Amino acid sequence: MDVDIGNALSSVASPGVSREALEAIDGTVAAAHERIEAGRADDEQGYAALDLPERTDPDAILSAVDPVADSEALITVGIGGSALGAATVVDAIDTDLETVFLDNVDPGWVTGHLADLPLENTAINVVSKSGTTAETLANFLVVREAFEDVGVDWTDRTVVTTGESGPLYDLSQRHDLPTLRVPDGVPGRFSALSSVGMVAAAIGDGDLEALLDGARAESETLTGSLFECPAYAYGATTYALDQRGASTNAMMPYAESLETYAEWFAQLWAESLGKDDLGQTPVRALGVTDQHSQLQLYRAGPRDKMVTFLTPRERVDRAIPETDVEDLAYLGGATLGELLEAEFEATEASLAAAGLPNVRIELEAVDEYELGGLLYGMEAACVLAGELYGVNAFNQPAVEWAKRATRGLLGGGDFEEADAVTEKETLRVER
Amino acid sequence: MDVDIGNALSSVASPGVSREALEAIDGTVAAAHERIEAGRADDEQGYAALDLPERTDPDAILSAVDPVADSEALITVGIGGSALGAATVVDAIDTDLETVFLDNVDPGWVTGHLADLPLENTAINVVSKSGTTAETLANFLVVREAFEDVGVDWTDRTVVTTGESGPLYDLSQRHDLPTLRVPDGVPGRFSALSSVGMVAAAIGDGDLEALLDGARAESETLTGSLFECPAYAYGATTYALDQRGASTNAMMPYAESLETYAEWFAQLWAESLGKDDLGQTPVRALGVTDQHSQLQLYRAGPRDKMVTFLTPRERVDRAIPETDVEDLAYLGGATLGELLEAEFEATEASLAAAGLPNVRIELEAVDEYELGGLLYGMEAACVLAGELYGVNAFNQPAVEWAKRATRGLLGGGDFEEADAVTEKETLRVER
Repeated sequence: MDVDIGNALSSVASPGVSREALEAIDGTVAAAHERIEAGRADDEQGYAALDLPERTDPDAILSAVDPVADSEALITVGIGGSALGAATVVDAIDTDLETVFLDNVDPGWVTGHLADLPLENTAINVVSKSGTTAETLANFLVVREAFEDVGVDWTDRTVVTTGESGPLYDLSQRHDLPTLRVPDGVPGRFSALSSVGMVAAAIGDGDLEALLDGARAESETLTGSLFECPAYAYGATTYALDQRGASTNAMMPYAESLETYAEWFAQLWAESLGKDDLGQTPVRALGVTDQHSQLQLYRAGPRDKMVTFLTPRERVDRAIPETDVEDLAYLGGATLGELLEAEFEATEASLAAAGLPNVRIELEAVDEYELGGLLYGMEAACVLAGELYGVNAFNQPAVEWAKRATRGLLGGGDFEEADAVTEKETLRVER
Repeated sequence: MDVDIGNALSSVASPGVSREALEAIDGTVAAAHERIEAGRADDEQGYAALDLPERTDPDAILSAVDPVADSEALITVGIGGSALGAATVVDAIDTDLETVFLDNVDPGWVTGHLADLPLENTAINVVSKSGTTAETLANFLVVREAFEDVGVDWTDRTVVTTGESGPLYDLSQRHDLPTLRVPDGVPGRFSALSSVGMVAAAIGDGDLEALLDGARAESETLTGSLFECPAYAYGATTYALDQRGASTNAMMPYAESLETYAEWFAQLWAESLGKDDLGQTPVRALGVTDQHSQLQLYRAGPRDKMVTFLTPRERVDRAIPETDVEDLAYLGGATLGELLEAEFEATEASLAAAGLPNVRIELEAVDEYELGGLLYGMEAACVLAGELYGVNAFNQPAVEWAKRATRGLLGGGDFEEADAVTEKETLRVER
């Protein structure tokens, strides 16, 4: 990925960061880079995420999915980091595989998907590191039953991705299921470039080697300077803008196929950096659609935002037919791609003209190689930002409370958090 | 809709609003209500949006769509408020109609949709008030050509929704197409309960009367007190929380079928209130999915957020099969709905326990009647909030700059905004 931070400079935007300030921050970046490299060398916490392009074995993934490689459809049963990376990859690449991600426990929605899919030709990938994630295991039990109900042996159709022990691991052994390992020490949101994120792409005939090659090329840019490394330029600039008041970061791809990427980014950014009262709020947007929804606010609302544009330099195109309507004549002869590009440049310039900081990320195209670079680059940016904020980017302690309360409410043990639920303060206004 | 603002009180949350402060605000609400009623009576600006349940004629909509009522699929060509209301309604209700909303000009994505749809049995609804919206008209030209290419007469399959003049209106007259009027003076984002939002539901056999009945029932709650009107309770509480620091409002439905509603809300809130450096930033979330993505940030990040939960009291359910895995035994015997409900209550309590303000909106169920109430209620909440902020909720002046620049870039006239695009400041960091 290439990054252009020109519109984040204080000569353009407010909040904005001066070149002098960036140069000063660059010293901190160098020190953070040292810590990151040491973390990788010592296999500390989640720093190993940055080693995945070297550690992931695409052949092991292809071999595990071989029994279901000809499937028409795939149900991925997983939630959060166990779903978003895989969804990002298959939504961005060109594939005929029908993919459903059961990342919610809405009963009608789950039932609707199971009713619509050709189960006899559908693969299942169940993904949970602990093997105990409530939503994933509940959905997996439901999916198994649906396969049994139509006489399809789910054990013939299932690939398991899990940790080195736990109920899912035990089950995979009992039924002799193809099983992939969630990489050690890497949180779900940093695992897109492992078996967690690549099973769907593998069944969908995606180019796993290109994905890893792109990530590897991006990894080679990780040097000690933000002026030389796109990932660090992004991480350091967003950090500096947040410090100066841009507490919201709207990720706005100009490509429908990257809409899921914006969701993946939102998890990466929120769960990694949202701690100790710190962290930008990621907002998912989409160009050009959200120009007609969010742009008014970005341009004229509180000056607490930055926008990250993401755009490919190449895309397939389609001509706009000529029209004899005078008011629309300028559209005829152009292409949809030219319109999209003009809208992107106009929106970017419109924010700059209003002094709203924005950053442009460019890809050569939307393909496996570029996507691998993007995912790796944003993970590296996030790890760097974690260092700059001084937070642990690899844990998510604040979600445990609700997990315990849920378990308590369902009779899965005695948890004081469940008692708090019944003590809710109410002030109801009813129709 | 019913609203519970108990968890927004300062006894629970920080930022939070005290009961005394709410009582003081209630006087302002009464005055704002008078202004709103006067605006409706005088048909001023967009206040007429609140009269749509009385003004919209479902029979006129049914009659216009009659020639295409048996279609298998529908392409809605529209963007922003010309798409989101209709999408919200059809995604929430039970329909077999396949619906595609061409609300972006991504060439590959548009081409993919046109290749996948059964065009000979697909209806087209083109929606633009001015009849000149660049994205919509470009896509409409492309769609027409695609129909011609497969020998289907697009004039047999098209319903037009537009204003009283303009290129689309002229075209509808020239080809004698069924044509519906965009209601006068009502901005797109407030037009879900008009022909703009109801054509897709009409073709999809939705119950238009129930939609309007629900909206009408909600309109009858509009009194001068936030303690008696759910819509005003929501509008006044979000305003008060924003004033106290909750500059981000995460809309988090616990129903997949309401995911699009969160997008509709994001436009309503952002475009109506995002002006004069004011306005909350709406964030689209989804329960339970985003508990595994955004909850960490909401609970442990900067205290500049509120969460709006939206949940139906009734839903179809599905049992979770029993399991002999000890660690998961608590799930067996429960239902997915019970799990979802427990997760909702746990997440709500988890935010309250962390002092993060949140509001609960309850629907009886997800159906046309309740949806009509919800859409109307949130529009009324937004109009009230506009009064409290002192902004005009019905315009969107900040988006014009980029529209002029786009037009200039495409050779559609001489606009100084287009020149600014070429003067972009750059600081590139490349791979």
